[in-house]
Amino acid sequence: MAADEPPRQELIRRLNQVPGATKALVAMRADLLRLGQKDDALEALDLDFRHLFASWFNRGFLVLRPISWQSPAHILEKIIAYEAVHAIDSWDDLRLRLEPADRRCFAFFHPAMPDEPLIFVEVALTKGVPGSIQGLLAADRTTIEAQNADTAVFYSISNCQEGLAGISFGNSLIKQVAADMSLELPRLTTFVTLSPIPGLVRWLAKEGHDASSLDPNSLLALAAHYLTEAKRADGMPLDPVARFHLGNGALVHKIHAQADFSDKGRNQSAGAMVNYLYDLELVSQNHERFSASHEVAASPEIRSQSAAAPKIPA
Amino acid sequence: MAADEPPRQELIRRLNQVPGATKALVAMRADLLRLGQKDDALEALDLDFRHLFASWFNRGFLVLRPISWQSPAHILEKIIAYEAVHAIDSWDDLRLRLEPADRRCFAFFHPAMPDEPLIFVEVALTKGVPGSIQGLLAADRTTIEAQNADTAVFYSISNCQEGLAGISFGNSLIKQVAADMSLELPRLTTFVTLSPIPGLVRWLAKEGHDASSLDPNSLLALAAHYLTEAKRADGMPLDPVARFHLGNGALVHKIHAQADFSDKGRNQSAGAMVNYLYDLELVSQNHERFSASHEVAASPEIRSQSAAAPKIPA
Amino acid sequence: MAADEPPRQELIRRLNQVPGATKALVAMRADLLRLGQKDDALEALDLDFRHLFASWFNRGFLVLRPISWQSPAHILEKIIAYEAVHAIDSWDDLRLRLEPADRRCFAFFHPAMPDEPLIFVEVALTKGVPGSIQGLLAADRTTIEAQNADTAVFYSISNCQEGLAGISFGNSLIKQVAADMSLELPRLTTFVTLSPIPGLVRWLAKEGHDASSLDPNSLLALAAHYLTEAKRADGMPLDPVARFHLGNGALVHKIHAQADFSDKGRNQSAGAMVNYLYDLELVSQNHERFSASHEVAASPEIRSQSAAAPKIPA
Amino acid sequence: MAADEPPRQELIRRLNQVPGATKALVAMRADLLRLGQKDDALEALDLDFRHLFASWFNRGFLVLRPISWQSPAHILEKIIAYEAVHAIDSWDDLRLRLEPADRRCFAFFHPAMPDEPLIFVEVALTKGVPGSIQGLLAADRTTIEAQNADTAVFYSISNCQEGLAGISFGNSLIKQVAADMSLELPRLTTFVTLSPIPGLVRWLAKEGHDASSLDPNSLLALAAHYLTEAKRADGMPLDPVARFHLGNGALVHKIHAQADFSDKGRNQSAGAMVNYLYDLELVSQNHERFSASHEVAASPEIRSQSAAAPKIPA
Repeated sequence: MAADEPPRQELIRRLNQVPGATKALVAMRADLLRLGQKDDALEALDLDFRHLFASWFNRGFLVLRPISWQSPAHILEKIIAYEAVHAIDSWDDLRLRLEPADRRCFAFFHPAMPDEPLIFVEVALTKGVPGSIQGLLAADRTTIEAQNADTAVFYSISNCQEGLAGISFGNSLIKQVAADMSLELPRLTTFVTLSPIPGLVRWLAKEGHDASSLDPNSLLALAAHYLTEAKRADGMPLDPVARFHLGNGALVHKIHAQADFSDKGRNQSAGAMVNYLYDLELVSQNHERFSASHEVAASPEIRSQSAAAPKIPA
Repeated sequence: MAADEPPRQELIRRLNQVPGATKALVAMRADLLRLGQKDDALEALDLDFRHLFASWFNRGFLVLRPISWQSPAHILEKIIAYEAVHAIDSWDDLRLRLEPADRRCFAFFHPAMPDEPLIFVEVALTKGVPGSIQGLLAADRTTIEAQNADTAVFYSISNCQEGLAGISFGNSLIKQVAADMSLELPRLTTFVTLSPIPGLVRWLAKEGHDASSLDPNSLLALAAHYLTEAKRADGMPLDPVARFHLGNGALVHKIHAQADFSDKGRNQSAGAMVNYLYDLELVSQNHERFSASHEVAASPEIRSQSAAAPKIPA
Repeated sequence: MAADEPPRQELIRRLNQVPGATKALVAMRADLLRLGQKDDALEALDLDFRHLFASWFNRGFLVLRPISWQSPAHILEKIIAYEAVHAIDSWDDLRLRLEPADRRCFAFFHPAMPDEPLIFVEVALTKGVPGSIQGLLAADRTTIEAQNADTAVFYSISNCQEGLAGISFGNSLIKQVAADMSLELPRLTTFVTLSPIPGLVRWLAKEGHDASSLDPNSLLALAAHYLTEAKRADGMPLDPVARFHLGNGALVHKIHAQADFSDKGRNQSAGAMVNYLYDLELVSQNHERFSASHEVAASPEIRSQSAAAPKIPA
Repeated sequence: MAADEPPRQELIRRLNQVPGATKALVAMRADLLRLGQKDDALEALDLDFRHLFASWFNRGFLVLRPISWQSPAHILEKIIAYEAVHAIDSWDDLRLRLEPADRRCFAFFHPAMPDEPLIFVEVALTKGVPGSIQGLLAADRTTIEAQNADTAVFYSISNCQEGLAGISFGNSLIKQVAADMSLELPRLTTFVTLSPIPGLVRWLAKEGHDASSLDPNSLLALAAHYLTEAKRADGMPLDPVARFHLGNGALVHKIHAQADFSDKGRNQSAGAMVNYLYDLELVSQNHERFSASHEVAASPEIRSQSAAAPKIPA
């Protein structure tokens, strides 16, 4: 034990020596996060947990495993439970996300918690970049062969463990999956998301726009402006999903109106969705610029849409 | 990163994010231990390695795997290479340690280094507690069925990774193996070692005894005295193997003269060997007493032998 | 190829050389059984299939695998589909059959068709021999720990492959599962079924009894008589489930009235069910006697019930 | 059981129902082949074994597994024991056949005998077609990366089970391995053997040539003549290795003098070796012609060498 290290850390390490303890400790931190806010002693304990978990759940120790209809049922029921973006209603619905030839799913696991996915991403293989989530997920769409796809769409990414809040896996997961898939399917040239813009409606309202009365072009322009120009006090983008993907080194590629007809999609994103593009050759450079100066990478189309954004109505 | 943590730790954590990096980092510390002594900066770096490795190689993350003649050859060649107590001369010799019905071997592995045993223990199943290593390992001995054995003998335990020096696995390994074997073979009632006494000859010489001229009874008495009474300045036993097993909570059970005819056995241990007994019900209590007050647990036989030890010749 | 062997057999063997062919050939025979009746040439082909499948699906080549909530979803959906005795309504229902501590399921697989169960048996662990299938399957029952059970109840056994009709696995499956479970759970002393009596109502009607107006004691007595005395022209028991279990060497142990409230249970079995007992020490002897002389093994209780069976009403 | 089938077959099938029996039955036939010759009853039994084994060990049931330095030791010791072409002297020698980047080994296994290879082939990856076995196996050769190889050389193929004599696996093994490797290593364009010509010296002697006094060109021409023109009474090639590879659909590609300096190579093949070429597009056609009319496929070079073969000295 280092001289200046809180003895709580050594206690947590010793608790972890029992088989199965890692899972229990992660659950313990989930309780702590729920119960311990505004209590200095518990917040200090949380810092220790976080310090240790950052070591224990280091990327080098995580294992990427494909999730498929061949996966064990006790894992799959967790995928159903943890899906946070586009809810999975039933086992039949789950099968539609996993079994078709143009669908993939991948999760990170830790060897000491082999039955617990930490984070998972759902992928659709397409020809061309899609602009509607309901179209992408339609049960009656024409399924394509994986080797004919040119685009991999990360349409949902979900964290599974509340107890690992603040330990970031998403960046590594997307990059690893993109790298592995481009080896397996050499015709894949484009890796994009199809993402909500969850802060859009609130921001429009604050700016004096009524989301429901905007024509599509105005909506696209305002959304482009929101994603590239609207910032928090610390210089980071207002939109939380944008912060995640831009922080990973993706760029704002294309925005679609009338792309999500779900209640959540209408209420938060005004029905719009956005593709963030992971260009594996630019990802490091984008990430550096974003980290250093909050510079938002965007396609020329997005830039000109943003420039054309209508002013606030008088 | 904690505020007061050396940034080197974060660097090592980031290096570890690359697949396969853990093994490389362990090798890096092995180099460091070889090259870095007496250099303050390198010793500070070693402290960081040690801190992180204690977290990463926490017992909760280690996997116990049996080593057998069915194990992969690239693992087995490491068992040959790393055996530190009773050398394995050839693949035929290895087979004699693994294949007979009354032999077992177990190793700890870390999931991020699946091809590298960290530590392994070799076990012989016997009727009664053995008193000679050559007898125990004789190729022409009568092999017994595992389910007929009453005693499991840990006759060799070897660390494999120089880069993990100071990260202790042996205690957990012996206890886990004893617990697992007593489940698998319920007739096993006795768990002992058959261990060298590597500091005996040197100590005898310092005490004025000539190891080669001692009669067996005197040798046994002096060895009992050495193991239970001879201490370092810090109160710990002089003998390094005794420190390990007593620290684990074992007790000094029985000493045998003419128990090891090898050159090493004669030169270091005067041909004597000792059984340390792991009594699973007393192990915690023994460990506590040894930790608190360096109290050496020993059988009544050892106590009376030690009391009868001859004085130093004038 | 043997001189007098139909060349069709060699053709089938050659078709089988392609990877994945075994499953296709089994499906081909399923088609043949559906389409080929009363056609001499196709019936001859079926004989060849049957001859080869008896060789290929020899017990020595089958693999027993536990089916649990940890099994792959694409296997589990087949369990749902193939359950022939007590239908599984949903994935939640399936979980109730697999996940509780007092439930087990086992299936035979063939290595060349690793995704296709051939036959499976569902097992409930109980204290005492149960007399009601709804009680046994009740979701709100008190679950017991497996190691506290004294009885294993084979309450459902289902063939999965129409193309393997006439190739018998059930006997081997029950005996293997009983043998394995008695090793794993040494307190298990009783292996029974809880089986329907599917020919009972039809037989009662033919004998002039009205199943719906019988008092419980008369029903039990008549059912005992039916199972032990009612025979086909060839001397075999009338009841098909009785033929199966008696042929395996089980004995008629106990009959329960009001044991199955399902429509099927009422309509076919008058609500009654029967325990066939697999006494591992008597199974061979029972089987021999039954094969040699159609002698039906039964408990003393069943014998006296049968003797007391009421005559046909005038 | 078919009406006209010997009851011995049913007996063997029943014996096979016991776990582990398949291996014992194969060993039983090995004994039979050793002991039963010239005994009509035992030869009839052998016919039954052969009939059943042809069904049981059908290609569709065999599993191709790579053999590597990561394989279990108890499998590897069988590779050492069964290597029939170029003996493996030691575990170090074995490692040289398995561990380098330009070496591969594959074996067929049967699921009911998972610890027993049935047949295995050793492969060297090279640039260009090699002409010397000692050169190919030299420990001090320059190892190449697998992905840079253009040629896969099947330099040794060995059957492992005497009890499966007459059940042919070699053809399937070579074709499966060639197909799998061309998928894994798309730059591989050439699949050849480097084979002995074991009947050459005996044939030369019979033809009146003294193998030791022939100049290289005459030896090559005579060997070409021997392989393509020397026939048994039934029209099949005299040379047993030629019969095997030509029967598989390979062609005689190139002969090398001074290609094998071993005693066996000199005494049987006059130091010459031959490459049989497996051209995956011609293999079926070659096989058909060879089966139908014993037509020997050969390269133009071999044809002209054969035409130039010197006559028998007067």
